[in-house]
Amino acid sequence: MNDTICAVSTGPVSAAVAVVRMSGPQALTILNRVVLHARTWQPRVQTFCTLFDGKEVLDKALVTFFQAPHSFTGEDVVELAVHGSSYIKGRLLELLCAYGARPARRGEFSQRAFMHGKMDLIEAQAVCDLIASGNQAAHRLAIHTLDGKLSARLTQLKTTLAELLAQIEVRLDDVDEEMTPLGTDYITQQIQSVLTHIKALAQTFSVGRLIKDGLKVALVGVPNSGKSSLLNALVGFDRAIVSAQSGTTRDTVEETLDINGQKIILTDTAGIRDHAVDVAEQEGMRRSVRAMEKADVIVWVTDGSLALSEAERTLWQQIKEQHKRTLIVRNKMDRTVVPLDLPADTQGFVIVEVSCKSGQGIQELKNSLVKDMDEAETVDGILISNLRHYEALLRAQTDLEEALLQVNAGGEFLAEHIRKALFYLQDLLGEVTPDDVLGIIFSKFCMGK
Amino acid sequence: MNDTICAVSTGPVSAAVAVVRMSGPQALTILNRVVLHARTWQPRVQTFCTLFDGKEVLDKALVTFFQAPHSFTGEDVVELAVHGSSYIKGRLLELLCAYGARPARRGEFSQRAFMHGKMDLIEAQAVCDLIASGNQAAHRLAIHTLDGKLSARLTQLKTTLAELLAQIEVRLDDVDEEMTPLGTDYITQQIQSVLTHIKALAQTFSVGRLIKDGLKVALVGVPNSGKSSLLNALVGFDRAIVSAQSGTTRDTVEETLDINGQKIILTDTAGIRDHAVDVAEQEGMRRSVRAMEKADVIVWVTDGSLALSEAERTLWQQIKEQHKRTLIVRNKMDRTVVPLDLPADTQGFVIVEVSCKSGQGIQELKNSLVKDMDEAETVDGILISNLRHYEALLRAQTDLEEALLQVNAGGEFLAEHIRKALFYLQDLLGEVTPDDVLGIIFSKFCMGK
Repeated sequence: MNDTICAVSTGPVSAAVAVVRMSGPQALTILNRVVLHARTWQPRVQTFCTLFDGKEVLDKALVTFFQAPHSFTGEDVVELAVHGSSYIKGRLLELLCAYGARPARRGEFSQRAFMHGKMDLIEAQAVCDLIASGNQAAHRLAIHTLDGKLSARLTQLKTTLAELLAQIEVRLDDVDEEMTPLGTDYITQQIQSVLTHIKALAQTFSVGRLIKDGLKVALVGVPNSGKSSLLNALVGFDRAIVSAQSGTTRDTVEETLDINGQKIILTDTAGIRDHAVDVAEQEGMRRSVRAMEKADVIVWVTDGSLALSEAERTLWQQIKEQHKRTLIVRNKMDRTVVPLDLPADTQGFVIVEVSCKSGQGIQELKNSLVKDMDEAETVDGILISNLRHYEALLRAQTDLEEALLQVNAGGEFLAEHIRKALFYLQDLLGEVTPDDVLGIIFSKFCMGK
Repeated sequence: MNDTICAVSTGPVSAAVAVVRMSGPQALTILNRVVLHARTWQPRVQTFCTLFDGKEVLDKALVTFFQAPHSFTGEDVVELAVHGSSYIKGRLLELLCAYGARPARRGEFSQRAFMHGKMDLIEAQAVCDLIASGNQAAHRLAIHTLDGKLSARLTQLKTTLAELLAQIEVRLDDVDEEMTPLGTDYITQQIQSVLTHIKALAQTFSVGRLIKDGLKVALVGVPNSGKSSLLNALVGFDRAIVSAQSGTTRDTVEETLDINGQKIILTDTAGIRDHAVDVAEQEGMRRSVRAMEKADVIVWVTDGSLALSEAERTLWQQIKEQHKRTLIVRNKMDRTVVPLDLPADTQGFVIVEVSCKSGQGIQELKNSLVKDMDEAETVDGILISNLRHYEALLRAQTDLEEALLQVNAGGEFLAEHIRKALFYLQDLLGEVTPDDVLGIIFSKFCMGK
């Protein structure tokens, strides 16, 4: 922790500007060796200066010094905004390392910020998610987590549990039973209040993960039902090859799109038929089933201008076996439409009438797709979107449920379950997380952060 | 020019940090709309603040204000260092534009810096070259040009010509011949002194362009002479497929490498034979000749352990027809070597004895390749590397040579040639360059610069 690290924070491309960041106790000393004229640096003031490699001018840069602890990492930090050529970036890092810094590992700046108490593990993770977010909803999720709401809520629950545990433990040590016993109602109520909050938080993960990672949608339908046209209508441009020849889409076509600010991953599968005509077609059908298995939502595309075929009725059985949220699309509504004749057990499913030609129903379909995400039920604005957080909450939940069963028995078993639940909450905030686990978590961050 | 422009300056990738730059009279007003709390901004101080899109928090950013004229462009400039997600960058640009900015064109910040006299056209071009430079020599070239040496030299020559022209013109208007005529010796000497400098500058282009764009080297030799092994030895790792079967390298293999900080573009060509054995081989030979035609240097690889074949003597004739700088490599010197028996007219050519197995001679070959570039003769550290600059110097040179022929005749013809030479020097500095030409020049810059 006492060494000084450096990295390019603006990515590996050549660009007008690149920012090279350095953090650690030697940052200022090293800076003064790399500038043509060493000087005293006023914190936070951008200073235009000449970088020098000992023999030649390397660049003219805007340099900023952030004095510990008033910096991102809590250490002395220097940021050098240089011309973003690959040569300048590489040579500057070389120089900084020659003068005593070392290349930072991925996420090491954030890890130091965490170590110095500038942010907890949840906030650090939110920074990472923020950088990765490519759409409004995922971005909003990360910003809210970064705002510390989740951290504050967890800290509050942790305090309740810690106080309860202390009360229980002190009585376990009270062999002479001099203290008033805790009432079982009181214990139950305390545990129950924490458990309710934890359950509510954990429940938000089902939507939170969709918002963060995107909603996987499988478009299925028999050949020529217009799946590719529908994909194009949703994407807004010609992506899949649309052909009147059935079975054109042999491979699955995947497209990431932004619907109402939400990330959607659409998979157009090969047409599913009752009897495959050749091997490739059969392989395509297998892929369709796999796509449905991986999907969060299935969109069944039917041709509104044709009566339902036997193949489509068979397909419907396959869809139903997946037990997933399913939307039924009646496509080609611009043509002469046949009377609705869906299988009886489609009742209760959402049916959207669509014409890819006129655009009719496309927005309605989009709204239906992202409805759950748009109307996500949060806990006071908090949504859990990280698997690690979800799993820790589930573990805490299990232990608190066990604890509830032990309230009447009391004693060490009760304490142990509360202690474990408390541990999981602390682990969420990074307070008890082992170094190697922290290393793994931060190694998934980006370079220079 | 009175509008406010904005762009991402750190490239199109997601990264820890992205810098969004804004320049123009509205920069501060727009900044105050995009931050959660409007304030007075102290120039050059990085301020941590919350960006707000009117409804939601967009990001927490480090914002710096540069007050006109003390900024890169000479206008009010605002730089926002945000978390480098694609969403944040896109949304921030959207907001800035909604509040009155517009997206900058490529190079538009530099163009404004030029327009406001912060740099001349040569310096602006050097910034562009600096960002593109991928090796030490090209970088050094750009840094030196950016330092203003070339600009200062051209300005000095321009002044000499302008003064001379003024003296001549005033006498052209002096119809009553009241002034003392200029001595022809004086005029000749003045023109000659400028001409000498311009010629010397123009001459540096032959090496300057190699340093900027890289030295193109064609490796040629009959099959199995060891060209691919030599390429690998130069590159430092297995790049081309090396095979004892002659004629393996059918396609040309191109490799960019850094030798002594210089950029080298090596092309390994198909083995050249006297009689092609099949069509592909013949096509390969054609490619070899094309590679030699495009090359700056030819490296002829011979097998030191074998006597020169008839095919090799024929190849030597083909090489000689190119009239290019040629190095002769005697390869496989680790084997039992036959006595040197090169054609008589190879006398005077550099011969390097090499073993790709032991590494013998590889560094010597590298040094020979980049000798001209390493020992580039500069004019007081100045090298011309830009075709536009070279062409303008050549035009100025031609007019000054014409002017010299007119010294005795004197009059309007003399004045006209000096005027044109002066124009070309002014054009180099961007002083008389038409707007559409400037537009083309700056459009080759990178985004956000």
